[in-house]
Amino acid sequence: MAFINDNFLKLQKNYLFADIAHRVEAYKTAHPDAPIIRLGIGDVTRPLVPAVIDALHKAVDEMAHAETFRGYGPEQGYEFLRSAIVANVFEPRGIALSADEVFVNDGAKSDTGNFGDILGRDNTICVTDPIYPVYIDSNVMAGRAGDFNNGLWSKITYCACSEENDFIPELPTKPVDMIYLCYPNNPTGTVLTRAQLKKWVDYALQTGALILYDAAYATFIRNEDVPHSIYEIEGAKECAVEFHSYSKTAGFTGLRCGFTIVPKEVTARGADGTRVHLNPLWNRRQCTKFNGTPYIVQRAAAAIYTEEGKRQVKEVVDFYLENARIMRETLMATGLKVYGGTDAPYIWFKTPEGMKSWDCWEMLLNDYALVSTPGVGFGPSGEGYIRLTAFGTREDCVEAMRRLKK
Amino acid sequence: MAFINDNFLKLQKNYLFADIAHRVEAYKTAHPDAPIIRLGIGDVTRPLVPAVIDALHKAVDEMAHAETFRGYGPEQGYEFLRSAIVANVFEPRGIALSADEVFVNDGAKSDTGNFGDILGRDNTICVTDPIYPVYIDSNVMAGRAGDFNNGLWSKITYCACSEENDFIPELPTKPVDMIYLCYPNNPTGTVLTRAQLKKWVDYALQTGALILYDAAYATFIRNEDVPHSIYEIEGAKECAVEFHSYSKTAGFTGLRCGFTIVPKEVTARGADGTRVHLNPLWNRRQCTKFNGTPYIVQRAAAAIYTEEGKRQVKEVVDFYLENARIMRETLMATGLKVYGGTDAPYIWFKTPEGMKSWDCWEMLLNDYALVSTPGVGFGPSGEGYIRLTAFGTREDCVEAMRRLKK
Repeated sequence: MAFINDNFLKLQKNYLFADIAHRVEAYKTAHPDAPIIRLGIGDVTRPLVPAVIDALHKAVDEMAHAETFRGYGPEQGYEFLRSAIVANVFEPRGIALSADEVFVNDGAKSDTGNFGDILGRDNTICVTDPIYPVYIDSNVMAGRAGDFNNGLWSKITYCACSEENDFIPELPTKPVDMIYLCYPNNPTGTVLTRAQLKKWVDYALQTGALILYDAAYATFIRNEDVPHSIYEIEGAKECAVEFHSYSKTAGFTGLRCGFTIVPKEVTARGADGTRVHLNPLWNRRQCTKFNGTPYIVQRAAAAIYTEEGKRQVKEVVDFYLENARIMRETLMATGLKVYGGTDAPYIWFKTPEGMKSWDCWEMLLNDYALVSTPGVGFGPSGEGYIRLTAFGTREDCVEAMRRLKK
Repeated sequence: MAFINDNFLKLQKNYLFADIAHRVEAYKTAHPDAPIIRLGIGDVTRPLVPAVIDALHKAVDEMAHAETFRGYGPEQGYEFLRSAIVANVFEPRGIALSADEVFVNDGAKSDTGNFGDILGRDNTICVTDPIYPVYIDSNVMAGRAGDFNNGLWSKITYCACSEENDFIPELPTKPVDMIYLCYPNNPTGTVLTRAQLKKWVDYALQTGALILYDAAYATFIRNEDVPHSIYEIEGAKECAVEFHSYSKTAGFTGLRCGFTIVPKEVTARGADGTRVHLNPLWNRRQCTKFNGTPYIVQRAAAAIYTEEGKRQVKEVVDFYLENARIMRETLMATGLKVYGGTDAPYIWFKTPEGMKSWDCWEMLLNDYALVSTPGVGFGPSGEGYIRLTAFGTREDCVEAMRRLKK
C-alpha cells in the first residue's frame, strides 16, 4: 500500500497571491472602469533583448537540420555557457571558478528547492524573515521544518529583519545547519555590504553551517560596497553554494534559465562526521533527476555575454532601476520610510500610522487602484510593510506615483 | 554543522555509458580509421520537424515585443498545451481527462525522479529487470532502496524479464508499494498487451500499490492489442500516474518537454491510513520547486498536434521503426533471438552461444566496429543480452546490418 510523504500535509495553504488575485477581482467587479496598476507580482514586462532573440532564431535553425541538430546535451549545461559564465560573471570580480563548478538550470526556483535533495533531513534551517516562501516550503516538504505554530515553524530559526535593525539580520543565537540568504533581498530590496556578509561567512566556517546564497538580483547592484557574489568573501567557497537566475536580469521569466555554483571546496558532513564534497553529489543528483536546459535557451543565455548582449541587458536593468528610483523618491517625499530600490528591483516601505499590511494593501487598491503585495505575506516580520516591484512600464510607474503624491 | 543526505553515498558509480565511451576511445586510438557506427545511445538523429521549427520561430518573435512577450507561465503548463494533449493523446482512445490532470514538464526523466518527493520514504519499490536506471537511483537517493548486495538492492523487488517468461514480468510475490512499469520497454523494446497490463492494474487496485507508468515510447506502438496509455485499462486512474515524453516521439531530446498525468482519482495513504489525492500534492510540489517549461518550447510541443505536425512527426517515428524492422529482420535471419523493434525503437537480442553481455559488446566493436549497449548494464536480468537503438541514420543502420550479415 503506497503512502504519501506526510510532510506535504503540514504545508500551509499558500493563499498570498491567490488572495491578492481574488481581492483584485472583487474590486474590478465593483469598479469595472478603475484604471488598475499592478505593482505586486515580480514578473518583468520588457521583452527579450535583440541579441537574445537573434541567438534563439539561430539556434532554432540549427535544430532544423540533421548536421547541426542537438539532441541530449550535458545535464550540467553546455561548456560554451558554463565557460561564458565563469569568464563574465566571476573572473571580472577576481573569483576563480572552473566550468565544472557551474551547473546550468531552468531557473533558481528549481535548484533552491531541489538542492535539499543532497542534504540531510535532520539539518536545522535558518532563514531571514521576511523571506521568499520557496526556501521554507521546500524544507517543509523534506521534513526539516517541524510544526507550524503561530505563524512560525518549530525547527526553523528566523532572523528578523525590520527597521529596528535596518534590515541587517543578526547571526542566529542557536546552532543552525543550513542558512538561506538572498541578497539583494526579495522582498525587502535591501543589501548586505561585504563586511556584513563576511560575518555570515565567518559564522558558517566556524560552525560548519552551509550557506545557500540566492544572488538572483545581483545585476541590480550599483553600490560598490555590495558584493555581487558571496565568493567575493574569503572562505565562502568552503561553506556556500550560490544560485543565479536570468529571470529578472535578462527577462528570462518565460524562457527559464539560471545557474548554480557548487565550488569544489564546499563540503558537508557524512553521518560518520567525514567531510563530503557537495560538487559530485549535486552532479549526480542532476544527472539522475534532470536532463539539462534546452540547447536553444542556453544559446540565448550565452548571448547575454556578448558585447551587444551585455549592453542591451544593462539597458533593461537600468530601466527597471530608474523605475525603482522614481518610486523610492516619490514615496520618501510623502514621508514614508522606504527601503530597497537602489540595488534591487524591490521597494519595501513601512505602512503609515502603524497600519497592518493587508489594511494598507486594501487602501492602496481602493483609494489609488494600485495592486501591491502585503509584507506579512513573506513572513511575520513583514507585518506593517508593503512590497512594490519596479518591473512595470515607465508609464504605469509614473502614473502610480502621481496618484500617491496626491 | 550541515550534514549530507547519506543515501547518496550508497549510489553505485554508474560506469555504464562512461565505460562504453572509454572502451570506444581505446578502440579508436588503436584503429583510427575504423568506420565506427554507434547504435548504443538512445538519442535521436533526425532534426525537429518543420511544424515545430515554425512554431519556435513564431514564439521567439512573440518574445521580442512587449505586447506579445510572455513572462512567468503557469507552473503546470499553458492551457493551450494541456488541452491539446487531452484532445489528441487521450480522447481518441476514449480516455476522459481534464486539462488540470496534465502537468507539462521538461522531460520524463525529471518527473519520474521528482515524483518520489510526494511519496513516503518507507514505501517499498518494485521494478522490472532489466530497467532504466533512473527509477532505481532516484529511490536510492530517497532512502527507499536499502543496501546494495550482489547487484541487487535489498529493499527493491525485482521482477525478472528474460526469454524464459518471454519478457512478460510476473506479479511480485511479496507486498510492494510503488511499481515502476515502462512500456514499450526500455531497454528490451517489448510491450504488454491490454490483458497483460490489466493484471498489474488489478494487482495495484487490490493491494493499494501505486503504479508509476512510463509511456515515453507510446507513439512507436503499431500493434492494436497494445495499450498506448495505462488509462485504457479500467480502474487505472485510481492507481496509476503516467509519464510521457516528446524526446523520442518528436525529437525533443535537446528541446526538453514532456508531461505527467496525475488523475484526480489517484490516491495514496496518509500515515493515519486516510486516502490522500495525489493531484493537489503534485501540483503543490511543482508550484514550489518548478517554474514551468519555456513558453517557446510549449508552443513547439503544441505544434505536434496540428494536422501538419502530426503527419511530420509520424513520418519520423515511421522512419525509426523502419530502421528497427531492418535491424530486427537481419538479426533474426542470422539466427539470433531478437525482441522488441516492432512497437519500440529498441532491439534487444540474446547473445550467441551464451556469451556474456560485455564479451559480445567487445566482439561487436572489434569485429564489426559497432557500438552497442551491454544488457547487463540495465540490471542483472540483462546479462547475456545486447541493446541496439533504431535512432541512427538509415545509411548507418543498413551498413551495420550488412556487416553483421557477413
